[in-house]
Order: sequence, then structure tokens, then C-alpha cells
Amino acid sequence: MFEHEWKCHWGQVDPAGIAYYPRLVDAMHEAGEEFMESIGISYWDVKEFDMDLPLVAMDMEFRKPVFVGDTISIEVEPDIGNKSLGFDFTARHEDGAVAFEGHEQHVCVDEDKQSMVIPDKVREPLEEAIE
Amino acid sequence: MFEHEWKCHWGQVDPAGIAYYPRLVDAMHEAGEEFMESIGISYWDVKEFDMDLPLVAMDMEFRKPVFVGDTISIEVEPDIGNKSLGFDFTARHEDGAVAFEGHEQHVCVDEDKQSMVIPDKVREPLEEAIE
Amino acid sequence: MFEHEWKCHWGQVDPAGIAYYPRLVDAMHEAGEEFMESIGISYWDVKEFDMDLPLVAMDMEFRKPVFVGDTISIEVEPDIGNKSLGFDFTARHEDGAVAFEGHEQHVCVDEDKQSMVIPDKVREPLEEAIE
Amino acid sequence: MFEHEWKCHWGQVDPAGIAYYPRLVDAMHEAGEEFMESIGISYWDVKEFDMDLPLVAMDMEFRKPVFVGDTISIEVEPDIGNKSLGFDFTARHEDGAVAFEGHEQHVCVDEDKQSMVIPDKVREPLEEAIE
Repeated sequence: MFEHEWKCHWGQVDPAGIAYYPRLVDAMHEAGEEFMESIGISYWDVKEFDMDLPLVAMDMEFRKPVFVGDTISIEVEPDIGNKSLGFDFTARHEDGAVAFEGHEQHVCVDEDKQSMVIPDKVREPLEEAIE
Repeated sequence: MFEHEWKCHWGQVDPAGIAYYPRLVDAMHEAGEEFMESIGISYWDVKEFDMDLPLVAMDMEFRKPVFVGDTISIEVEPDIGNKSLGFDFTARHEDGAVAFEGHEQHVCVDEDKQSMVIPDKVREPLEEAIE
Repeated sequence: MFEHEWKCHWGQVDPAGIAYYPRLVDAMHEAGEEFMESIGISYWDVKEFDMDLPLVAMDMEFRKPVFVGDTISIEVEPDIGNKSLGFDFTARHEDGAVAFEGHEQHVCVDEDKQSMVIPDKVREPLEEAIE
Repeated sequence: MFEHEWKCHWGQVDPAGIAYYPRLVDAMHEAGEEFMESIGISYWDVKEFDMDLPLVAMDMEFRKPVFVGDTISIEVEPDIGNKSLGFDFTARHEDGAVAFEGHEQHVCVDEDKQSMVIPDKVREPLEEAIE
């Protein structure tokens, strides 16, 4: 399973002393970016595949606070639909405790923003990543 | 209904030319902060009420992209539970079209992080804000 | 003199309880964006003028901390060169005390990234803004 | 010489397709944090040394743009004064070309915010880091 490490820095912590949650959203998004890059379809080259993957929905559940200096490991599991692509994220502290879980739901669209089936050259590396 | 205006600036837009969604999470959080401040219980003074309001879950649905220079209006509607406080957010473009909808679910805890009933001095201004 | 108001929110404050300074850099940049938009040359339309204004240098001096909930007013004064454009920024607290001063130095380049004289249709509104 | 690697992600790039510079300020600050942690005086534990290191000034010069997906290496060189601590930063692309240079100037203050000489237990690890 793909994992991305993310370290909580000074400017990502709020006055209550824990990670300000929109910074954890950044961390989650970065984990998805890194996953896609690892299978050869980085967000910044996705246009080469004549498609785009806009986000339609996302959610998060927060289990255990992240403090400054903490490094969390974010697991990325793709959920491959016909015309959509989801990501399930699980972020764990160094002791294995879950920090947060989350989900991003993307849809696959063509250059005219019309729904399209995920092309094989994208689907195949995604499926290989799961196996 | 309480509304907070938020303008999309240069650094909040991604290479695809639309607002990078974690910046919309910031905008949503700011709307909640402004609502609470408007009823006299700002996040930065919440300790005065011998409680804290940690976030346990949140979600968003994205309807229509936000572009650089756009100003959106984010409506905040509290959902007052016994020991919890939710916020429903609806962000609209200037033409009224929904940009995104979202929800934050907070729980009310005491100084020992134990669940507690929302104190009356907090519940009352929240209820007045709905009426 | 052009002024931009900026409010310090929860996620912009660090564990020491004051604004994390890169968020003040965001605030300063936003003030420059707002100034340019106010004279009809917004950053997001600058390509229409067949030029670009990349940043080559910036600096800041911090005089008095900004706390969560504070609103500061950022004054923008352009410094118009022949082939360059600078901005002097002065951010003040509500009592007039200076929070920070800063400077951004941009250069004017054409579509091939070559230095060029600021075109008259950009220079004129800039000069009018100073008068 | 201490070096910190930083990768430019999707949300850190502006509509012009290059890193939005306040995100490079974040990167520079993170490099300073990592340096201090590496010598055992992390920002989040600095109060243990009965002192604080507020920032009074900073500046940056931008040499070569950073694009999404780029990894830069940020070198940190402390400049140890009697009652102050500066950091010189040099960020390089993978081919060695300088992306930006920068400087942060911190002062050493006691718990009453009064200027103080850097205590030996902080000065010694800083001096060892230079040797």
C-alpha cells in the first residue's frame, strides 16, 4: 500500500497547540499527489491523458490530534470507478494510532468538462497499484 | 442568517486556474470563526467558557469552481446538539450559484477532554442566532 | 494612499500565539494584488498588457506582533522605475502602531522574459495612484 | 552544512505556473526549523531554554522559478551574534542552480521580552554546527 510521510511544522499548528485541520487537508492532498506521481500519472501531467480529475466531494474524520514536530504516515488506497476515482486515506501516528481518515471523490472529465470513462492508460497503472 | 464574504486571491489558485480546495477549507473555517465572534464566543476566547470545541468530522461538496478574484459569500447555520455543535455552510457566487456546501462537526469537551453538555452561556447566544 | 484591511484568523497564528510570519507575507502580497486591481491592472489580467511582473526580491521588518482576531491596515505605495515596479508596504494596528514594513521588487518583462520598459497604459494608472 | 529538502506541491503553485513566493517563505522557515531540531533546540522546545527567538527582519532574492513537482535543497548557515541569531539560506535546484537566497534575523529575548545574550547551552550546539 502506498504511504506518504508528512511532518507537522510550526506554522501548521494553531494557538490550541494542535495541527490546524485545513493543514491536514493539505497533507491529505499531497499524499494523493504523491500516489499519482508514483504510478506515472502526476496531477501536473494529467492533461497529457486528455482528461482532468476535478474533485466533487471530500470528507475527514479526526481521531487523534497531530502536534508540532509529529510525523504521520498517510496511506492512500484508490477506489477505481468507471467514470470516477476515489481515494481513501488513513493517517497514522508513529505508534500506529490513527490520526485521521479521509476520502476524496474525483470524477473523470474530458476537455469539454463532460463525464468520461477513465482511459485504459490511466486505469491500468491504478489497478496495478492495488494488486 | 450569518454570512461571511471571502475573496479568492492569487496564491489560493492552483495551476489548473481554480481555487485549490484546501484554501476553500480555510475559507469555510474562517466563516465559522466569524460567526462565533459575531455572537460573542470567539474561538480565541472559548477557554473562558471552561470548554473546548474540537472538530471530529467535516465534509464538503464542490458545485462550481471558484476563480481568482471571485468573491463568495459563505452562509453559516449552526446545528446545536446537546454535547455537540455542528455548522452547515453554503458558499455562493455573486450570481447566487452554489460554489460549495460543507459541514463541520464539533464536540463540546471540558478541560479534561471529557464530553460535556454545552453550557447555557454558550447555548443561549447560539439559539438566538438561529431565531 | 491605498490601504488594504487584513484580519488575522485562527489558522494563521503559531503555537507562540502570534501570527506566523509567512502568513503576513500572504497578507502583504494580497495588499499588492488589491492595489493593482484598484487601478485596473489586476495580476490575473496582467497578460493582457503583454507583460509580466515577476518578483526578484522582497524584505520585511517586524515591529509589533499581530494576534488572532487583530485587523491590520496595509498601506501600499508604488515605486515606479523605468523597467521595474516596487511596492512599499506599511501595516498598522488599529491604534496606529506599525506591525510590519515590507517591500516587493518586481521587474517588467515581455513574453520572452526579456526586460522591458513599463508600457504607458500601465505606467499612467500607476502614476495617477501616487498623485 | 545542513540541508533541508522541500518539494513543491500542487497547491503551492500560482496561476502563472510557478511557486507562489509566500510558499517559498514557508519552505525557508521549515528549513530553519529542521536545522534547529537537528542540533537539539527545536522551536517547539525553545522555552525550555528560558528564552525566545522572535524574528525582527527577513529578506529573499529570487533567482530561478520553482515549478510544481520540483524538489529543492535549502542550505542553512547560522550567523551567531551576541544577542541575536541570523540564518542564511540558499535554495538550489537539482542541477545546482540557485532558486532563491534568503535571510532571517532573530533576536534572543528573555521571558519579559528583554534582549539577552544567547545562553551557552544554545550557543555551543550552534557553534558546533558551523565547525
